[in-house]
Amino acid sequence: MIEQTTLEFRTRGRGTTDITAEVQRAVAASGIAKGLRTVFLQHTSASLILCENADPDVRRDLETLLSRLAPDGDPAYVHDTEGPDDMAAHARSILTSNSLSIPVAEGKLMLGTWQGLYLYEHRTAPHSRSVVVTVMGEG
Amino acid sequence: MIEQTTLEFRTRGRGTTDITAEVQRAVAASGIAKGLRTVFLQHTSASLILCENADPDVRRDLETLLSRLAPDGDPAYVHDTEGPDDMAAHARSILTSNSLSIPVAEGKLMLGTWQGLYLYEHRTAPHSRSVVVTVMGEG
Amino acid sequence: MIEQTTLEFRTRGRGTTDITAEVQRAVAASGIAKGLRTVFLQHTSASLILCENADPDVRRDLETLLSRLAPDGDPAYVHDTEGPDDMAAHARSILTSNSLSIPVAEGKLMLGTWQGLYLYEHRTAPHSRSVVVTVMGEG
Repeated sequence: MIEQTTLEFRTRGRGTTDITAEVQRAVAASGIAKGLRTVFLQHTSASLILCENADPDVRRDLETLLSRLAPDGDPAYVHDTEGPDDMAAHARSILTSNSLSIPVAEGKLMLGTWQGLYLYEHRTAPHSRSVVVTVMGEG
Repeated sequence: MIEQTTLEFRTRGRGTTDITAEVQRAVAASGIAKGLRTVFLQHTSASLILCENADPDVRRDLETLLSRLAPDGDPAYVHDTEGPDDMAAHARSILTSNSLSIPVAEGKLMLGTWQGLYLYEHRTAPHSRSVVVTVMGEG
Repeated sequence: MIEQTTLEFRTRGRGTTDITAEVQRAVAASGIAKGLRTVFLQHTSASLILCENADPDVRRDLETLLSRLAPDGDPAYVHDTEGPDDMAAHARSILTSNSLSIPVAEGKLMLGTWQGLYLYEHRTAPHSRSVVVTVMGEG
């Protein structure tokens, strides 16, 4: 069995949004109990990450590190059409991930206790982001 | 239904090649309309990335950043059997990705408007690279 | 057909463990000859990587690079509840990967000649790590 749906999120600019519950709810009515749920982000300036979900400081420190690895407005960038965060956002997206497959058992995402699924907006301005959820498996 | 095929690419040394069309065409005759297409690179010194496909400067700037994060010929490297780009290539591969799952609807890859799928060669010399495409889904 | 199992590994602290054989053996009795095997790590301070498997120096150099990109005890970190390697481990996990899908043919992982699948422990102390293996395909 396969079920597919697209979730739309409105971000508030750079930062993370916990989308675990939305992804869990998506096509929950499909009756797929065992299998795999793949989340895919249709953008190149944001990402999907699995991150520690207890202490928000982890995501704050992650932001500090990514800003260092792919700084906004780096003088070496040629691509800056949409501003100093444009190229940095593309690089951050590639250094993290756009596509994640998470196992499903008894209809639930088999995440670890401290794992949250986050949409990470890398642009400084708010954006609309589409995440395609595909569930494959058996009832 | 499952279809699997291996695509072979000859790279021209370090840099990106857009393989979106080849991956889209692969096993297009399978009749799988809805599901997931997984691309897997059988190498550890190249990668598969989803990158902005409109402005080639994005890939040029990405190259600048990766050269900084994993420099060729870094004096700290112990592994340099095949030259100064050898270890750098392995590190770049691990910092990006080798395996990507992309949803399929109506027989087409559900990529975002600005998303291209690229084979990224990290070695400076040309190489032959194998990409396994697995399509799972229903007609 | 779908088969799913969880493998448990005890790490010896920071460093890599080759888990290729264990993942290959997992649910080998399932009779799934063609398809996809997805490995998923239920933790946010370790990772799953595909790395060159011939020269251990590659993993040593990778460790050197990751220590540079996400240093232990960086004064910028706010999150240090579990010690100087705590936040560094979360960042390393996100810069590498937690979820990998590997094609299967004739019942075997279609890895390249030099590709090994490694569990990468990023904490300095030993930990127990759970890897969920999901095999989807046909006989």
